[in-house]
Amino acid sequence: MIHVAVLGYGTVGSGVVEVIETNKDMVNKKSGDELNVKYILDLRDFPGDPYEAKVVHDFNVIVNDPEVKIICETMGGVGAAYAFTKQALEAGKSVCTSNKELVAAHGPELLKLAKANNCNYLFEASVGGGIPIIRPLNYSLTAERIEAITGILNGTTNYILSKMENEGADFDSVLKKAQDKGYAERNPEADVEGHDACRKIAILSSLMLGKNVDSEKIYTEGITKITANDFTFAKKLGMSIKLLAMSKEVDENKAMAMVSPCLISADHPLKMVNGVFNAVFVRGNMLGDSMYYGKGAGKLPTASAVVSDVIDCARHLGKVIMCFWDAEEAQLVSIDETSRKFFVRLKNAGEDKAKELFGDIKPVRVEWIEDEFAFITPKLKEKDFAEKYACLSDYALGRIRVEE
Amino acid sequence: MIHVAVLGYGTVGSGVVEVIETNKDMVNKKSGDELNVKYILDLRDFPGDPYEAKVVHDFNVIVNDPEVKIICETMGGVGAAYAFTKQALEAGKSVCTSNKELVAAHGPELLKLAKANNCNYLFEASVGGGIPIIRPLNYSLTAERIEAITGILNGTTNYILSKMENEGADFDSVLKKAQDKGYAERNPEADVEGHDACRKIAILSSLMLGKNVDSEKIYTEGITKITANDFTFAKKLGMSIKLLAMSKEVDENKAMAMVSPCLISADHPLKMVNGVFNAVFVRGNMLGDSMYYGKGAGKLPTASAVVSDVIDCARHLGKVIMCFWDAEEAQLVSIDETSRKFFVRLKNAGEDKAKELFGDIKPVRVEWIEDEFAFITPKLKEKDFAEKYACLSDYALGRIRVEE
Repeated sequence: MIHVAVLGYGTVGSGVVEVIETNKDMVNKKSGDELNVKYILDLRDFPGDPYEAKVVHDFNVIVNDPEVKIICETMGGVGAAYAFTKQALEAGKSVCTSNKELVAAHGPELLKLAKANNCNYLFEASVGGGIPIIRPLNYSLTAERIEAITGILNGTTNYILSKMENEGADFDSVLKKAQDKGYAERNPEADVEGHDACRKIAILSSLMLGKNVDSEKIYTEGITKITANDFTFAKKLGMSIKLLAMSKEVDENKAMAMVSPCLISADHPLKMVNGVFNAVFVRGNMLGDSMYYGKGAGKLPTASAVVSDVIDCARHLGKVIMCFWDAEEAQLVSIDETSRKFFVRLKNAGEDKAKELFGDIKPVRVEWIEDEFAFITPKLKEKDFAEKYACLSDYALGRIRVEE
Repeated sequence: MIHVAVLGYGTVGSGVVEVIETNKDMVNKKSGDELNVKYILDLRDFPGDPYEAKVVHDFNVIVNDPEVKIICETMGGVGAAYAFTKQALEAGKSVCTSNKELVAAHGPELLKLAKANNCNYLFEASVGGGIPIIRPLNYSLTAERIEAITGILNGTTNYILSKMENEGADFDSVLKKAQDKGYAERNPEADVEGHDACRKIAILSSLMLGKNVDSEKIYTEGITKITANDFTFAKKLGMSIKLLAMSKEVDENKAMAMVSPCLISADHPLKMVNGVFNAVFVRGNMLGDSMYYGKGAGKLPTASAVVSDVIDCARHLGKVIMCFWDAEEAQLVSIDETSRKFFVRLKNAGEDKAKELFGDIKPVRVEWIEDEFAFITPKLKEKDFAEKYACLSDYALGRIRVEE
């Protein structure tokens, strides 16, 4: 029997207990031994809960119990979670986490600590919820040089953008409804400003490069400025708008990473990723494009990913599982130096000036939207575009990057 | 240094050598040691080829060389490939293969032989070319009870159906063009009659159930009867037609497996899998739906999957990698007992009879297609549908299953 402890009996933590219980036969078979949840750490008590007796309030009970071999950290945050994870790993206990904030902030340090103590720090659930993406990157695409990763990594913003697209609604009204339904937090900043997606692409980029990508150095733009008119014009152009988290190898030692709303064409496989679904698009130098799609959040999908890590740890007790993510900092190029097309919306009076600046553009108009047109620029460096767009400030109604 | 041999220097075999050479640094880093292709087995000589000196014609040279630890079987077929694989495994050499025919026919036996000799038999490349699907099923979705797998598993038929859909062309003319371009074999039967997809879903079903699914017991229907008119009516219904390979758990001891063209709705994620791309849709009881998408065939994608297996073998020399696929035969229910909706095309004169048989159907007509209509039946057992459809033989123009 392998004893497991769960830190934090919230949504994901209680999901972990539920997955281990519901799929007991399968989980034990795949683990090669019986898994037993021995402790649940939480500040609260849970009178009446079937696992009430397993709840403890003191982490020392867990870390000092030599029977506990695997710990699920489903607390979130970088305070206590960070301290407990370090203590657990130092005690030779493997840790499986859904905590993207902690993984993005301290991944290489915790991986190194796990290795030094002959145990594992696994984080499949930290990106894409239940979508297997960390393990495919680490174990499956091993013969590939990964050239680019493009993901829809945040369910809340994808839900909002999908609703705006389908209902022609504006950002604020859709956000309000999403909050009422519990699909968006009361304080939605981490989602709608792109910070959550940023942490996730930092993790994926680090695995792509084998070096540490600092999430704070990733250019991050949220979806709060996207309007109903943007979608109307995008549709007319045969395109959609998604919040993309992207990472591209520029050369062997440099990468570009960014979170930004982008127009994508209607036949792009990411176009059909709607609502709370997430997807990660990976380009390898041999395989070409591959994509991983599924539920990016939610209690059971996320818990399932944590439990898949627990099973991996159970099968590798005393052995270190391969993960290449060095502490050495990866070099990111400034996005100013990267090139792409841009979608621009202007007042009609700006058309001549736009042609003067961008050359032979093709203005698109929508019958019921007055005094406004949109166009897509040729491919330009970000900084060159920014200069030209600044010259249009009298007419400018918005601009969105285009991902080809 | 870990020595590797490649059996068969054809498309995939030469791709394996190319991937190992091109991505040398990455491959060696992930393998934890340097990989060296020591032998290439082929009946032919390759004068002028950079690897000419490695070509041997006698398998005994390879199997008797104690330095060779890993063998890539990229020959295909179940004759020599089967014999060589058994000899290699008996000699304790791991085998990595792209040979779906052999895996489908002898998977459990070869896995058992590998286990008995403390080595591995891996077959990531046998399904979905470069798409990681075997490893996600075996290592990632371990906390899941897999309830259903639905795949587009054959690139040739998907290319043909995509072309028929986009160009309004008939099967024969598109097949001819596909053959001219090399996207379809001169003898296309294995692809267009569904046999290739059948072997692949047999492998995936076996992994889903942990028991052996005999490919010869899977109901298999190809795409040769699909017409341009089918696509026209499908489009009018907001649907598409794909060759699906499916497997569903019916209860704990039984499954349904089938290869058949199916109508799917325009918002199904498999709808956007076009041309030579493949995808596998997996439904788990905790995770819900997830999908794996990429190039299902081709030299380098397939070779990349073989090399990912080589790396896995290199990291597990002397250790057996988990794979649950027993020789015990899985029980398949007759598809006669399974239920679904059907798309039916009839001559106009059959409308009253169709209403009599199927109740309140909604006939769909297309202006430029004379004396013909289509409808979708209510959900019915296969055998009940077949009886009713037989009563319409005077008017029947075709029927296709509907996958919801």
